[in-house]
Amino acid sequence: MIKRNKIGIFDSGVGGLTLVKHLFSYLPGYDLLYFGDTARVPYGSKSEKTITKFALEDTEFLLSQGARIVIIGCNTVSAVAYDVLQDNFSVPILDIIFPGVKEALRKTTNGKIGIIGTQATVNSKSHEYYLNRLEPSVKVFSNPCPLLAPLAENNNMSKYVVKSILKTYLQPLVKNNIDTLILGCTHYPYFISEIENLYPNLNLIDPAKQAAQDLKKLLQRDKNLDSQLSKNNHTEYFVSDTPKNFVEVYHRFIDRSLEHVKVVDLEKVLQPKRQELYHDNSIVKIEV
Amino acid sequence: MIKRNKIGIFDSGVGGLTLVKHLFSYLPGYDLLYFGDTARVPYGSKSEKTITKFALEDTEFLLSQGARIVIIGCNTVSAVAYDVLQDNFSVPILDIIFPGVKEALRKTTNGKIGIIGTQATVNSKSHEYYLNRLEPSVKVFSNPCPLLAPLAENNNMSKYVVKSILKTYLQPLVKNNIDTLILGCTHYPYFISEIENLYPNLNLIDPAKQAAQDLKKLLQRDKNLDSQLSKNNHTEYFVSDTPKNFVEVYHRFIDRSLEHVKVVDLEKVLQPKRQELYHDNSIVKIEV
Repeated sequence: MIKRNKIGIFDSGVGGLTLVKHLFSYLPGYDLLYFGDTARVPYGSKSEKTITKFALEDTEFLLSQGARIVIIGCNTVSAVAYDVLQDNFSVPILDIIFPGVKEALRKTTNGKIGIIGTQATVNSKSHEYYLNRLEPSVKVFSNPCPLLAPLAENNNMSKYVVKSILKTYLQPLVKNNIDTLILGCTHYPYFISEIENLYPNLNLIDPAKQAAQDLKKLLQRDKNLDSQLSKNNHTEYFVSDTPKNFVEVYHRFIDRSLEHVKVVDLEKVLQPKRQELYHDNSIVKIEV
Repeated sequence: MIKRNKIGIFDSGVGGLTLVKHLFSYLPGYDLLYFGDTARVPYGSKSEKTITKFALEDTEFLLSQGARIVIIGCNTVSAVAYDVLQDNFSVPILDIIFPGVKEALRKTTNGKIGIIGTQATVNSKSHEYYLNRLEPSVKVFSNPCPLLAPLAENNNMSKYVVKSILKTYLQPLVKNNIDTLILGCTHYPYFISEIENLYPNLNLIDPAKQAAQDLKKLLQRDKNLDSQLSKNNHTEYFVSDTPKNFVEVYHRFIDRSLEHVKVVDLEKVLQPKRQELYHDNSIVKIEV
């Protein structure tokens, strides 16, 4: 039987590696399990129902490999499926939206906060929900940025084109006088220096960094949980498609050698359990 | 038992609707089945193995719904999985690459042909293979365009940005003096007028249009096959995620009312057969 003593992280693909980088920095030595669902990436353009189904499977996979805690290393999943995941599993599930929201409230002085993210993240209004629950007076402005994640993974555009694309997405938020911007997708910190050059007065929030800090604080408070986590400085990487792109992005994000990556056929690993998790008819007719 | 008397078309998502439009025009009245795998879109950034697995499932689904012929309405699948599909099924499987290749050879006068497509399509070198098999002297230049499909689906960029992105991708091909360009992804005809404005002397090839014409010719030659196809002017649409984006793109591409769309859980429809089609270990360790 597999021992549940690791920190599990999952993402739709490779973006969650930015969270891994911050975990290496804030929690050095802790054993990690990473799963990137590269066969079904991206999640951000898909429906809440489909994203939730994928997230349930991803979490279940990490538990099957020994995760004692799961961090959702994907803003889209955090935005649309956090509650369902918490409802379905008994281990602690940590999200990436709430840490970013708290930091944005600490940083803003004028109470006007901008959000950029995938279409699904923006549609979910989960940032608005948390921000207004913690601070009802805050004003929130959001804009989906469907080109930014593919651009971060394949950027051979000129600096001028990148700047123009960023301005197209950010100018409507800046016009509303935001002083703080949540980079609500793990790919977006890739553009931090360009955004800083365009808008030097904005506070930029990287939710992955905040999530790593929050986990560190949680483990300092909960010594019992901390004592159950293994600390052999060992990280295992799983992906659902061939690891070529994963390996490239890994070396761009993370300054640490990579020994191997494991490719998972999620259906085969999870098949016996799947039916219990997610009930559905196989074909549903929708009038339009 | 379902009667196999329809023309089936599948695509990773909504791009294959451009093929449906051309089928309406060249084969009016024929009954069609369309499947868009919107839960796992895009295919073009994924590995050949994963794309092939998805394509086998998509084809099997269309057969389960009554397809007598299957057209691969996706350049990526045509490029990487056409041979495997032909090997696995007994109905006629038609691709979208070969019709475009033949038309490009008819149009070129200097024998220099450019290809744009997804990363997987370009990596496959299937255009080069067919072009050189039919005409060994032809010179082929290709460039993957990972931003163009997301841009076609979410274009709120300025004309200037769109022009700059297109130039970034096309200029390296034009520098090699191509006189003909294959738009090797069903999304790319969306940019035809911009490309014509940038490079008015290029012959632009839309493979979906050629594929529809080729099917018409096939049915004119093979009267027996043609007599087995039902012609009640009825088209059924299936997608694997909620149909919101599908419906929007449908109305942009196709000037015909849409009654309903059916949402499919592919795993549940195909589960009993899946194991036979695709053997694999569930987790494979890959040294990097």
